[in-house]
Amino acid sequence: MSAAHQALRTAEVTGRRIEVIALEQTADTSYSACGIPYLVGGQVDSADQLIARSADEHRRLGVDLRMGTTVTGIDRDRHVVTATTQFGDPQQIDFDQLVLCTGAQAMVPDWARDAHGELIGGVHPAKTLADARYWLDLIIGSGRRGLVVGGGYIGLEMAEALAERGFDTTLATRTRVMSKLDPEISDRIEAGLTAAGVTVCTDTTIASARVEDGRIRSVTTLAGQEIPADVVVLALGVSPSTGLGAAAGLPIGAHGGYQPDDHQRITESIWAAGDCCESIDRMTGDWLYAPLGTHANKQGRVCGFNLGGDDSKRFAGVLATAITRFASGPTYLEIARTGINSQVAARFGYDAITLITESNTASGYMAEAAPITVLLTADRTTRRILGAQIIGGAQSGKRIDTVAAALWGRMSVDDLAEMDLSYAPPFATVWEAVQLAARRVAERI
Amino acid sequence: MSAAHQALRTAEVTGRRIEVIALEQTADTSYSACGIPYLVGGQVDSADQLIARSADEHRRLGVDLRMGTTVTGIDRDRHVVTATTQFGDPQQIDFDQLVLCTGAQAMVPDWARDAHGELIGGVHPAKTLADARYWLDLIIGSGRRGLVVGGGYIGLEMAEALAERGFDTTLATRTRVMSKLDPEISDRIEAGLTAAGVTVCTDTTIASARVEDGRIRSVTTLAGQEIPADVVVLALGVSPSTGLGAAAGLPIGAHGGYQPDDHQRITESIWAAGDCCESIDRMTGDWLYAPLGTHANKQGRVCGFNLGGDDSKRFAGVLATAITRFASGPTYLEIARTGINSQVAARFGYDAITLITESNTASGYMAEAAPITVLLTADRTTRRILGAQIIGGAQSGKRIDTVAAALWGRMSVDDLAEMDLSYAPPFATVWEAVQLAARRVAERI
Repeated sequence: MSAAHQALRTAEVTGRRIEVIALEQTADTSYSACGIPYLVGGQVDSADQLIARSADEHRRLGVDLRMGTTVTGIDRDRHVVTATTQFGDPQQIDFDQLVLCTGAQAMVPDWARDAHGELIGGVHPAKTLADARYWLDLIIGSGRRGLVVGGGYIGLEMAEALAERGFDTTLATRTRVMSKLDPEISDRIEAGLTAAGVTVCTDTTIASARVEDGRIRSVTTLAGQEIPADVVVLALGVSPSTGLGAAAGLPIGAHGGYQPDDHQRITESIWAAGDCCESIDRMTGDWLYAPLGTHANKQGRVCGFNLGGDDSKRFAGVLATAITRFASGPTYLEIARTGINSQVAARFGYDAITLITESNTASGYMAEAAPITVLLTADRTTRRILGAQIIGGAQSGKRIDTVAAALWGRMSVDDLAEMDLSYAPPFATVWEAVQLAARRVAERI
Repeated sequence: MSAAHQALRTAEVTGRRIEVIALEQTADTSYSACGIPYLVGGQVDSADQLIARSADEHRRLGVDLRMGTTVTGIDRDRHVVTATTQFGDPQQIDFDQLVLCTGAQAMVPDWARDAHGELIGGVHPAKTLADARYWLDLIIGSGRRGLVVGGGYIGLEMAEALAERGFDTTLATRTRVMSKLDPEISDRIEAGLTAAGVTVCTDTTIASARVEDGRIRSVTTLAGQEIPADVVVLALGVSPSTGLGAAAGLPIGAHGGYQPDDHQRITESIWAAGDCCESIDRMTGDWLYAPLGTHANKQGRVCGFNLGGDDSKRFAGVLATAITRFASGPTYLEIARTGINSQVAARFGYDAITLITESNTASGYMAEAAPITVLLTADRTTRRILGAQIIGGAQSGKRIDTVAAALWGRMSVDDLAEMDLSYAPPFATVWEAVQLAARRVAERI
């Protein structure tokens, strides 16, 4: 919808005459998928609050939005998509330019399905608003043992949601918690989860499920361990929904996503934006799959500008910046990252140094002071910052943006150590945490 | 002391043989001056907590620290300083290299002194630890009417301290509150002060004081208004303490401070660091007086590196980044700035655009969401960001660092709008507040 509205706004400026049709398969549009764990956890009162714009609002702003419409094929030669409505009526819709914003789908392992290919009762992902409604219904009448499969962002957030709902919660992950971070940070997250009463099973792959009366009872790991569970959240990540494009012969990347150019264009008449796309990682120059709302919004906007007649707008790539928190019981942890970790740095041939620096979010004598751990990776050759990870208490996570800005400008650890950042006792130490980390790395290169 | 310790550490690496003597006039060393308002306000329990390092700790680390020693003159030819101890003993101390770290002194208007030139009882600045002790003693037995003269950072913080101590508090400022910010931001701060029960008198200059039994009773403004007061905090700013250097013929800048080169060197054998120095404003290239702990620490460190034999270290200038808060009663405001405001931009010939953008610190549906106002100034010609000001609720102020990093890298509003910043519902909106502000400015240039 970012693409749709930006195209209309830009066309008004450029004078290009356009008509925007938007086809949406589900009954929901423009909601915050990132808010779902907080809805399930009870911090957000109702699903309505997650909806940014209703279908009618989109229509009032000039988009011909057709809900409940499933696209079944793309005829690239005839410039036509075929679709069926929710009532099964076949449709043909002409286009001059087609934008694929088909998003991503939650990964579902084989053991989570029954003989008919349907999800076992009590086993479900947490990606869409429909998923959220499933969980809200289920969570009330369920037993009290919850299992989260997957240790990434959604896994962590859904573990918080289950724990906050009073579930006896287990988190199982194939390697370690938040495995895209460095191991030292994963260890700290695991300790925080454990302190909050969450049982963490690392290096654990689920192999099968035991079902009774159509409902999940337990899962069994590859190692033969049985984990009882009344509900199982599938948080194994998402994969780009590119089936339509693949069937139409569009090229698909190694991560399964579209690989549009920096105008978000794939072919002369086909574009793509959002979670169905891979993005260029500015740190490696390589394609990366980073399905985040921030990128989706920016890509949609770039797409809209171009479709509306302003081809000066480009998508500049990603740093894989992300933030989350885990807050339950005695644990309050903010977790954030930007750039590449030490393993990726090594893989791309950097002579990297990685250092962990512990400090405080505020002057030690202030009540606001909370611990903050900054892991910083830099290139010894160029002294350029390659990435950072932060874990800490309140007000720690958002400091990742300072490093992200430095990464965006391809700055060195010296730049970050020298720059003029803000200090007052309730907000920082005199050497701001990320700056102290940069200074220590600079001294060791 | 940053300079002293860094010199010793660097000399160990370079093999330079050095001996470091430090002369301190007062009985206090290495304390957080920025913490004083929180000590006076009662958020910090004791003055000891503000002390970062005791005199003995400094000595154990190798600095020959001589407390209670007042330097009375510098003989540049003979490389000698004359001094007196607290017992009145005259001293002569030889030096090869001399570092002036004499700091700054609170500005005291004429009306605040009695016929003997002494401060009127109940009228006092809030700069040194001795000042803090004065206030801690006074605040207990005093009447309940407090006046803060000055609307800058210390004025605001001391208004909070008095209000939190239960004083009926008035803040009087010659122009407006926080006059180095743009007027729209000052207005918002004034509204927050007023909501907290602080009476704000703008465009108010104090002309005289009424004293009874050696204690302040009231002050009278230039306009003839009498403001009753049992205690008066002088928060009119500070001026660099450069009397010693001036007497020795060292050049003094327009703001009254030393103007060392980027090694912090003034002459072949004299250096300076901290609040007695002016700094180069990276946005204007001009000298600026920005007496902040962050710069003092960095300058001291640069000085120490050079004195220890590593002349590769330089001080890179300032952006005048700063942060504070006002938290009392129903008001909780974080206030931050970096770079130049619209008036300074105009004065330096920029064709500047300034825009105010209101958004949220978190997704609207989260309890963490607080309002945040971002004022962003940019150059229409180069599209470069010139400065930013932030005012808002919890977690708003520190976002200034993201803009400071962008300013440090001389980035454009487009860079800031495009960069990959962190988002999750408890921490930001999908278009992060500073990024949304940049996007809006970019669209309007």
